[in-house]
Amino acid sequence: MSKRKRAIQPTREENYPEWYQSVLQAAELADHSPVRGCMVIRPWGFAIWEKMQRYLDQKFKETGHSNAYFPLFVPLHYFEKEAAHVEGFAKECAVVTHHRLEKGPEGKLVPGGPLEEPLIVRPTSEMIIGHVFAKWIDSYRDLPLLINQWCNVVRWEMRTRMFLRTTEFLWQEGHTVHATKEEAEEEAQKMLFVYRDFVQGILAIPFIAGEKSASERFPGAVNTYAIEGMMQDRKAIQGATSHFLGQNFSRACEISFQNVHGEREFGWGTSWGATTRLVGGLIMAHSDDDGLVLPPRIAPLHLVILPIAHDASKKEEVVSFAKKVCEQLSSLSFAGEKLQVSCDVRDLRGGEKNWSWIKKGIPLRLEIGMREIASGRFALHRRDRMDEPPLAYTLEELEAKIPVLLEEIQEALYQRALLFRRQNTKEIDSLEEFSQFFSGEGGFALCHWNEDPAIEAKVKEELGVTIRCIPFDKEMRGAPGRCLFTGEPSPGRVLFAKAY
Amino acid sequence: MSKRKRAIQPTREENYPEWYQSVLQAAELADHSPVRGCMVIRPWGFAIWEKMQRYLDQKFKETGHSNAYFPLFVPLHYFEKEAAHVEGFAKECAVVTHHRLEKGPEGKLVPGGPLEEPLIVRPTSEMIIGHVFAKWIDSYRDLPLLINQWCNVVRWEMRTRMFLRTTEFLWQEGHTVHATKEEAEEEAQKMLFVYRDFVQGILAIPFIAGEKSASERFPGAVNTYAIEGMMQDRKAIQGATSHFLGQNFSRACEISFQNVHGEREFGWGTSWGATTRLVGGLIMAHSDDDGLVLPPRIAPLHLVILPIAHDASKKEEVVSFAKKVCEQLSSLSFAGEKLQVSCDVRDLRGGEKNWSWIKKGIPLRLEIGMREIASGRFALHRRDRMDEPPLAYTLEELEAKIPVLLEEIQEALYQRALLFRRQNTKEIDSLEEFSQFFSGEGGFALCHWNEDPAIEAKVKEELGVTIRCIPFDKEMRGAPGRCLFTGEPSPGRVLFAKAY
Repeated sequence: MSKRKRAIQPTREENYPEWYQSVLQAAELADHSPVRGCMVIRPWGFAIWEKMQRYLDQKFKETGHSNAYFPLFVPLHYFEKEAAHVEGFAKECAVVTHHRLEKGPEGKLVPGGPLEEPLIVRPTSEMIIGHVFAKWIDSYRDLPLLINQWCNVVRWEMRTRMFLRTTEFLWQEGHTVHATKEEAEEEAQKMLFVYRDFVQGILAIPFIAGEKSASERFPGAVNTYAIEGMMQDRKAIQGATSHFLGQNFSRACEISFQNVHGEREFGWGTSWGATTRLVGGLIMAHSDDDGLVLPPRIAPLHLVILPIAHDASKKEEVVSFAKKVCEQLSSLSFAGEKLQVSCDVRDLRGGEKNWSWIKKGIPLRLEIGMREIASGRFALHRRDRMDEPPLAYTLEELEAKIPVLLEEIQEALYQRALLFRRQNTKEIDSLEEFSQFFSGEGGFALCHWNEDPAIEAKVKEELGVTIRCIPFDKEMRGAPGRCLFTGEPSPGRVLFAKAY
Repeated sequence: MSKRKRAIQPTREENYPEWYQSVLQAAELADHSPVRGCMVIRPWGFAIWEKMQRYLDQKFKETGHSNAYFPLFVPLHYFEKEAAHVEGFAKECAVVTHHRLEKGPEGKLVPGGPLEEPLIVRPTSEMIIGHVFAKWIDSYRDLPLLINQWCNVVRWEMRTRMFLRTTEFLWQEGHTVHATKEEAEEEAQKMLFVYRDFVQGILAIPFIAGEKSASERFPGAVNTYAIEGMMQDRKAIQGATSHFLGQNFSRACEISFQNVHGEREFGWGTSWGATTRLVGGLIMAHSDDDGLVLPPRIAPLHLVILPIAHDASKKEEVVSFAKKVCEQLSSLSFAGEKLQVSCDVRDLRGGEKNWSWIKKGIPLRLEIGMREIASGRFALHRRDRMDEPPLAYTLEELEAKIPVLLEEIQEALYQRALLFRRQNTKEIDSLEEFSQFFSGEGGFALCHWNEDPAIEAKVKEELGVTIRCIPFDKEMRGAPGRCLFTGEPSPGRVLFAKAY
């Protein structure tokens, strides 16, 4: 790679966490807010989230789910109904205690109108949705009930990082009730694979699907499934989770139904969610030292046209030509949707303009100047190959080439991420190697474990390493063996990593 | 009209507010929640809101706006920065004072972790967005800044009614900053007309656009514009508002920019919003004593097919035929989108099935039984003409007729609402008539007024009647005259009504 100066300082190599913040700033994805731990999602970041929403929402509907909306607030006593659930969420929630402001003794505004019962700003909605479901469900004919909600939730985080961990975040939460255990288990897994297909096919990030160990389960769930991906600093990110709730929340919320035999039974539940954290994962998986890199299928803009006129007298001609090309290319399709093309006519220096799009991660940039107009060949720059010379095409060739190139970029990004993960995933069978691995560069370690939560807790405490999941993939899981930490029998390998 | 029993009890005539609640329940649009003043939006109600969102979002984008997301919470001291604003919102807001729950003296959960500064759950976002805009804006080149946000807001309402007035509601809030006063004023009006085109063209409800009187202005605005529609009980509903903020919030939030002459100036602002209240207005404008009536352009489902097999042995044949018809009709288009058709194969009695769709307001219902299959002619029922016999068409005719009929229904609903409003709008020039009008059936009264807020307040107190707007329409406004209440000069008529 050439030694030219990179747009992002520091580089990934120099300081990964600071590099991440710089990419966010340079691409105008997000901003700090005056509210502790809450972020502002700027238009470019929100456009990415909107595309994620659109894709997932369609998949949820195709799999039979309907959207609905439930209250932001949960009465305090609801939380006490499910013991594990309150334990998991009580320590980090926003509590509303008053319903107005009034003039205090010093003339300043102070909270007034104390509430009889405090309200919790939802950290998740199982308890409130469960209560409502209990009213809607009476007979097996009402099942399955398949509901999804797009909303904001609040978890009072002490250490926050934009997109990855914020006090308020946006998500969707699916909540379903089924007549049988088998059907609910199937639903929980089906939705996990909807997520995995999305992150792999659209975000171009390979993810490992599996089951969480007991200690990493959602508070109140019988089983939690998750997908785990590797970032460029070799740490894991949890992409989405899906929970088989058994009858726990149905008991707590009294969701019962009359079965075909006329007997009353508690329903079998699931819940599953994906959050704005996916935007953080997307950034960390593909971006480079020049800024954001967007896989074409998630990019809100596929191609930007940059009219270049060094000679002011030619500006009008160049701009008008560029606009015509823009219109022409806008009729193209990519991945079943209209190609998104924009012509940048802002009154900025060419270099500044070009770099603003590089930093925003646009997959393709097309330069149009007098020389290009004269020759009929136009320079097309790929964002994923910054150090290669641009390709030159005629307009006719461009029309044929652009959709093909976009698919090529999508696939290249996925393959690059997959290769990186493979290169940094290891089967480890000795304690010494395990400890060396995680004091060094780290990565994913597939190791045997005796399923004892105490061992898991010790590894977490000593090395900051957790079990990310028990992979479904039989090859990763491998044959039964001996626990790395105790020598006791282990049914198969599990995935250890440091994680976001 | 025939004397058959109606599906909704009580009827509009008998008790309009209770009829409204019954329609909501019968159509499964919304439900009460365990949280005071908050509602649950059920899938059918949410599907309507989603369609509203999709249409408006597209219009906002076409007019150059980008979506973004800002924090749910506003620090208390932000509210104190704009005097009118805090006065308007301080009395009705949810205040977060703690960030966790802990075990209290009696073992029950109590709020713990008091915050240094209380946080307000946003009742609207001018102050928090203004603070962020101040960071983003530095030069005239950064203007106009055109941002929209879809989110939830909370206003602590004492008397709530589903969709029309709830403690938490969903909305969009546009926030823009411009370099000149003229440009900001133009924006505020432009967005008002985006709303009016939407409610008239899609919701099929005639609305009157105008300016609010000073006392009805948004707290902190220089000017508030609104659209006002008439419900079937002759009361007004405010459909959406758009505010010209002048430099008020720019001063409070220090949003300044360097103009073309190199001088620093405060920006000129607007904000504008539409809420889930529009769903309430939609219900109240068109529905009848058999339930919801949906204009086709906002209906999530245009046509439902009802297979009818009295003879169980024929059921399979009928259902399979109906499904084929459903597939065939699904390829049709209406209003530039795919026709939404569904075949109801639920295991319910025919009457129950049919009425469930009537109550949900589906524009067209198609019955398919053995007799219809044999004759090749199918009975198509219009939701807006419940007491007329169905129309009979061949499959070929159906394909041509359905889109035409849907347009016809859309227009018929608009014309019916427009006629109703015209019949119940009166120019009133005597105090006696005014008072009689509003102690009787009421409606819209166009009257002269001397622009004195004291008069306005008195009318509100004595008759519960408010000035809905000062219409833009010159014909409504009429020639200058004499104030109905004081005999003083009046520049033109204003719109008085009781309102939701």
